[in-house]
Amino acid sequence: MTRNIKLTIEYDGTHFQGWQTQKNGRTVQDAIQAALKKIFGKAIKVIGAGRTDSGVHALGQVANFNVKTNLSLKAMRNALNANLPEDVTVLNVEEVRPDFHAQYDAKSKVYRYTVLHRDTRCAQLRHFVLLYPRKLNVPLMRQELKFFVGKKDFKAFQGTDKGSENGRLKSSLRTIKRIDIKKKGDFLYIDVEADGFLYKMVRNIVGTLLEVGSGKLPRGSIQKILRSKNRKYAGATVRARGLTLVKVDYEATN
Amino acid sequence: MTRNIKLTIEYDGTHFQGWQTQKNGRTVQDAIQAALKKIFGKAIKVIGAGRTDSGVHALGQVANFNVKTNLSLKAMRNALNANLPEDVTVLNVEEVRPDFHAQYDAKSKVYRYTVLHRDTRCAQLRHFVLLYPRKLNVPLMRQELKFFVGKKDFKAFQGTDKGSENGRLKSSLRTIKRIDIKKKGDFLYIDVEADGFLYKMVRNIVGTLLEVGSGKLPRGSIQKILRSKNRKYAGATVRARGLTLVKVDYEATN
Repeated sequence: MTRNIKLTIEYDGTHFQGWQTQKNGRTVQDAIQAALKKIFGKAIKVIGAGRTDSGVHALGQVANFNVKTNLSLKAMRNALNANLPEDVTVLNVEEVRPDFHAQYDAKSKVYRYTVLHRDTRCAQLRHFVLLYPRKLNVPLMRQELKFFVGKKDFKAFQGTDKGSENGRLKSSLRTIKRIDIKKKGDFLYIDVEADGFLYKMVRNIVGTLLEVGSGKLPRGSIQKILRSKNRKYAGATVRARGLTLVKVDYEATN
Repeated sequence: MTRNIKLTIEYDGTHFQGWQTQKNGRTVQDAIQAALKKIFGKAIKVIGAGRTDSGVHALGQVANFNVKTNLSLKAMRNALNANLPEDVTVLNVEEVRPDFHAQYDAKSKVYRYTVLHRDTRCAQLRHFVLLYPRKLNVPLMRQELKFFVGKKDFKAFQGTDKGSENGRLKSSLRTIKRIDIKKKGDFLYIDVEADGFLYKMVRNIVGTLLEVGSGKLPRGSIQKILRSKNRKYAGATVRARGLTLVKVDYEATN
């Protein structure tokens, strides 16, 4: 009997050219497909909840695939981890309803961007944070967050060098359900939950917020930039290494 | 005028063959000396508080060196960080009394060993934790800690393949001031503060504690092993990657 298997995957994106299979370059999807081929002896296609770009990390990426097997879920998880490189871990393996689709059924995703707000870099976290040494008005940044929330056209925050994150929707309308900034010591965590993300959307939002916080952009900029629907008014795209896909939520999967 | 400069250094030890200069292999001391040579145009020897082994990390390693310069401390720190590889950071630069010696004047050091106590590895933290999937009796491990505290002969916990950590003291008497186990989610943090450490002492203590916790060694083992003064009775040496030199304490340095 063919079973539909859902994976929850953690990875250090530093040495990957992102999630999605590509001709040249090491990708997470390829690593998982290679492990599945070793385990089941044939090519199996894995569907990811969404692409992550080169250098972006994941604590809870989700993917699914179909396979005919009697292996227990625990045995599958152990076999996958034994055959994956050490910068990818399968945290959880579940069996889901036959028509579950990791990409189309995703209800919302949470991304976290981590800023190290001090003047000296951190060696141990160098692949996981953006070092930001300039002064920041964090209360002002927080006041501007409300303009992002709701169903909006995020065209001004869409990367212009490629298509949208998953290529499925041509529209740049997305719904941000939650966006907040947590401060802990020298760290700022910018969390964004949305029904979907445009290409480079989180990195452009964070870059713009940092320009508001540092005074390069005035109060009220977010609303104006959103209305402009023009990428050139938003801030610079911050580097990928600070970004982590934290989780993907679904309706019931069984 | 010659100034004596104290550095506080953070590093990711993953890709270093430890702190100390050696003929072959990349070391932190060499990296710092190379940066100083670029900045000051001549060879300057750096004295570290103590060696760390290959793969061991530091949040607060300390070192000192002498130099004739008018550079400000902040300019020195920035110049060092600009000339160091990204897996080493100079966090702090101070001027200290002429006879301050980072090794001989160290009053105590704190090491932390991090155990990830679950059955699935963590990709993002793979270089910073020991994965330990077996069941552990943490209360029993904590009860055994008291036998480590005080001035004792730690010969049974000394690595037998090389000399002591700093080669200065032939004795294996050391004073552990504090040792505790903190539990946070799936993580166990084993912190040890002592006036000095023998070669591989923390890694042998942790290996032994894990064998007590997993039931391989019975209650009361620590006291017996200490009394034996024989390395063969202590547990296995755990891998270096879980170990971090957290800080080095001194009397007044000015």
